[in-house]
Amino acid sequence: MVDSDFLVRPGHSLKAKDLVADSTGPWKDKDHARKASEKNLEQLNELQRALYAEAKHAVLVVLQGMDTSGKDGTIRHVFSGVNPQGCSVSSFKAPSADELAHDYLWRVHARTPERGTIAIFNRSHYESVLIERVHELVPKKVWSRRYEHINNFEKLLSDEGTTILKFFLNISKDEQKKRLEERLTDPESEWKHDPNDMNERKLWDDYHAAYRDAVEKCSTEYAPWYVIPSDHKWFRNWAIGDIIVRAIAELKPKFPKAKTE
Amino acid sequence: MVDSDFLVRPGHSLKAKDLVADSTGPWKDKDHARKASEKNLEQLNELQRALYAEAKHAVLVVLQGMDTSGKDGTIRHVFSGVNPQGCSVSSFKAPSADELAHDYLWRVHARTPERGTIAIFNRSHYESVLIERVHELVPKKVWSRRYEHINNFEKLLSDEGTTILKFFLNISKDEQKKRLEERLTDPESEWKHDPNDMNERKLWDDYHAAYRDAVEKCSTEYAPWYVIPSDHKWFRNWAIGDIIVRAIAELKPKFPKAKTE
Repeated sequence: MVDSDFLVRPGHSLKAKDLVADSTGPWKDKDHARKASEKNLEQLNELQRALYAEAKHAVLVVLQGMDTSGKDGTIRHVFSGVNPQGCSVSSFKAPSADELAHDYLWRVHARTPERGTIAIFNRSHYESVLIERVHELVPKKVWSRRYEHINNFEKLLSDEGTTILKFFLNISKDEQKKRLEERLTDPESEWKHDPNDMNERKLWDDYHAAYRDAVEKCSTEYAPWYVIPSDHKWFRNWAIGDIIVRAIAELKPKFPKAKTE
Repeated sequence: MVDSDFLVRPGHSLKAKDLVADSTGPWKDKDHARKASEKNLEQLNELQRALYAEAKHAVLVVLQGMDTSGKDGTIRHVFSGVNPQGCSVSSFKAPSADELAHDYLWRVHARTPERGTIAIFNRSHYESVLIERVHELVPKKVWSRRYEHINNFEKLLSDEGTTILKFFLNISKDEQKKRLEERLTDPESEWKHDPNDMNERKLWDDYHAAYRDAVEKCSTEYAPWYVIPSDHKWFRNWAIGDIIVRAIAELKPKFPKAKTE
């Protein structure tokens, strides 16, 4: 488990200070963090090459957060230097009929990383205790036992060789408002506008209660949650990159020797 | 949990009497059981039609047993009357490179039944605590924690709507010898002959110790094991058919009314 100011220790209850969204950590501003951010990207690229060649460990990165919190942006910035052979992104949107006919972890398990690769989940199995809870798509009896399922599922993955890192991209309600408005004026973001986002925004407090439970109940030694201050995009990218780089470095991936037989 | 003389109650340690392989239960002989066996097949066919139409519950049937114990024969006899649309058979043989690159439940989860259907596993995730243990393909530290993974996995499936029935087809060592020899002389069975079966037979006691652990540690309220006396094929078919029919009947599947909107 990689330490960080943003790590939610197993059993910890989130306090107000854990939920500050506009922190910039050790950095004065974006320029001040630039070198460290660039170094993250270089290291990630190198580490991933060895991870892939060795094919011993797998890495699963889970990204969750409210609309506009920057899940897509994180993937673009942190992983753009990484060889896509050995890196998969799965976006979990509304489930298909086939997916709904199975348990909620079925489609998720199918997309877990194979040894040597990194899988990024843009939304994840946590939607089953977030949107399904907030919109009462399943009764409390059903969603309340899912935290244990999820912990057990992540324990299985961890025991069998997957390093799991989960990031809650935490933005403030004001910042979300600003970003939703920007979407309507930026020609490169306009396509992301969804009238339904405003309805979801009305459920902000319900979602936050659900996020809090998910993070508190499912931050474990083998699959920790990190709550990342995400009002500043550059900071979010640095913080997530830093944690991922250190976690993969701990696996000490090495290029194998040539096969001699 | 459907009761039966062959049910292994959660927490029960198997005794010699639980492992009698040539029992014929309430029947004198094959003819005596014929009507009951035929009734099983008819009921299974009817129940499955309603199960499929209702699409509310899923059923998972796990078949495990030593070579020649009759896994293929059980499927042929018990399920031949069932509409294959709504019934899938997955045979879990040696894992592929893709499968080996993931955790051992990955390929199994992918084949779990969707609501309304029956999935039959001809061998299953239990191979990961049977052949992998007996042949020391993974260290004890790895296989010994898998019982808990498996229980957790089956709990997830059960909580989310799957009825699980697990059958250990128990044959005696003498009966296996006879059947292996028959394979060499019967033109319709010859293709199943594998010289490696004789090597596996030498590990009989190791396999039986592994089966005993799997059955004892993983017979639960939500996913019970049944140890079926299987020296008599007709008895094995009746006993398994009987349990499956009663388990599906308990789900009370009903044809839905016509949609009116």
